[in-house]
Amino acid sequence: MILLDGKKAANEIKDEIKKEVLFLKKKHNITPHLVAILVGSDPASKTYVMHKVAACKYCGIDSSIVELYEGIEESVLLNKVIELNNRKSVHGIIVQLPLPKHIDSRKVTNTISPEKDVDGFHPLNVGKTVLGLPSFLPATPKGIVELLRRYSIQTKGKKCVVLGRSQIVGLPISILLGQKGDYADCTVTLVHSKTENIEEEIRQADILIAAIGKPGYVKKVMLKKDAVVVDVGISRVDNPKAKKGYTLMGDVDFDDVKDVCSYITPVPGGVGPMTVVSLLQNTLSSAKGLIS
Amino acid sequence: MILLDGKKAANEIKDEIKKEVLFLKKKHNITPHLVAILVGSDPASKTYVMHKVAACKYCGIDSSIVELYEGIEESVLLNKVIELNNRKSVHGIIVQLPLPKHIDSRKVTNTISPEKDVDGFHPLNVGKTVLGLPSFLPATPKGIVELLRRYSIQTKGKKCVVLGRSQIVGLPISILLGQKGDYADCTVTLVHSKTENIEEEIRQADILIAAIGKPGYVKKVMLKKDAVVVDVGISRVDNPKAKKGYTLMGDVDFDDVKDVCSYITPVPGGVGPMTVVSLLQNTLSSAKGLIS
Repeated sequence: MILLDGKKAANEIKDEIKKEVLFLKKKHNITPHLVAILVGSDPASKTYVMHKVAACKYCGIDSSIVELYEGIEESVLLNKVIELNNRKSVHGIIVQLPLPKHIDSRKVTNTISPEKDVDGFHPLNVGKTVLGLPSFLPATPKGIVELLRRYSIQTKGKKCVVLGRSQIVGLPISILLGQKGDYADCTVTLVHSKTENIEEEIRQADILIAAIGKPGYVKKVMLKKDAVVVDVGISRVDNPKAKKGYTLMGDVDFDDVKDVCSYITPVPGGVGPMTVVSLLQNTLSSAKGLIS
Repeated sequence: MILLDGKKAANEIKDEIKKEVLFLKKKHNITPHLVAILVGSDPASKTYVMHKVAACKYCGIDSSIVELYEGIEESVLLNKVIELNNRKSVHGIIVQLPLPKHIDSRKVTNTISPEKDVDGFHPLNVGKTVLGLPSFLPATPKGIVELLRRYSIQTKGKKCVVLGRSQIVGLPISILLGQKGDYADCTVTLVHSKTENIEEEIRQADILIAAIGKPGYVKKVMLKKDAVVVDVGISRVDNPKAKKGYTLMGDVDFDDVKDVCSYITPVPGGVGPMTVVSLLQNTLSSAKGLIS
């Protein structure tokens, strides 16, 4: 079994980005700038944003956090987004999800200018992704494909099963891996809560992408021998012995499956760091004006 | 075996549209208007456009054909599209494909205003479709879902195999049938030219959507008993005994499979007529201002 070390790959990519950022500054006097909007005080959301900010800093990308209080009116938030759309020095805008319930997340996402939508959530970017046109790919699926590429994992013609049909992970990765091209061209089955024989589907996977948010769900008995396992899940599981009182756990029971698969991502340190660097890559592309 | 009679269903839908068009005229003095752009003189393309025009006429929808010669410059075609985008009395614009090779089809499709893109090919409409937002669904996938609905075919949790990943049929129907909702919620596998065990995949299908353009490809031995078979293919096959010298044939060998499946679409008279009425439904929605 080989570990798909997302942390290591992400560090390599960050160094590549750093060089490009430096070149962009020297040659064109442009510094990429990412703005993250954070509503409310959810600690997990705050942690995610801080990871993104730290990664930006490492790469020489400017970042700002717009912190707004939990009860903010939707219209005020939308106006903030429009203001950032119009600010020329801003190249990427992200809104940390989830938003408070009184705010329509889709409305907010649709308001971000497609040219600055480095999370790739705007319908125009989603459509371009589906059609194989240049666009901002959503960060997690982009990171997964990049991880497969860094480990030269052959995907052409392989059977890929995607567990979970969320709009930000399961659905887009199912589309990307089924498209023509390198590190794509898979035969993809998208499995979800309504699937009748979920284990029978999983057992067919040469490549399994698990993104359902059920800690430890995937067991050895469900897997084909030598499957490639990409674990997107990251849940907090109570653990009185752990310092923080919890352990992070993916959708895959790592210890149970590790001897049966050929490659597997750890949790944490697998898909997570790849997601963050994908966002930085998109921000860099935006600053370079690569994606209109 | 029950025939999924697309012609009959389409005729019912045309009568429903006709009533709505009449109401729209009486109540709001609006007549839906579809413009079809036809470049060159390919007889098959001309036939398709004429079918659409005839269906419009039956329903009381205005239609125009803009006929342009084979060698037209791309820029002239794009300007024509822009002119139609700006004409208030036009509610739907379609460009009959394929276009001559010197013209970039995607550029033309992307130039049609998303509000008038009743074929649902614009990236913004594709993205909205993927996200489950109100949009113009592409005509063939929309017609297939409507046909399943008219025959009350249960899809929830069923295994659906889509043969072919074209951007106008295979890919969007795979997305629609995998979404949440009635006449959706399938477990979908998208199969294509790079798939390793194509027959093994087909054999799992409770619902098979064939859209690869290989006449008579699907045989009885490939099918699960009682599968629902939707045949999108329509190829001309030489037949010296036929009046026109050819016979129309789907991707499925109808005579071979008819005793093994529970439902099947004939070719012609299955998906084809449903595609045409879907286009009319989109044009009507556009005239009603239902889709922004």
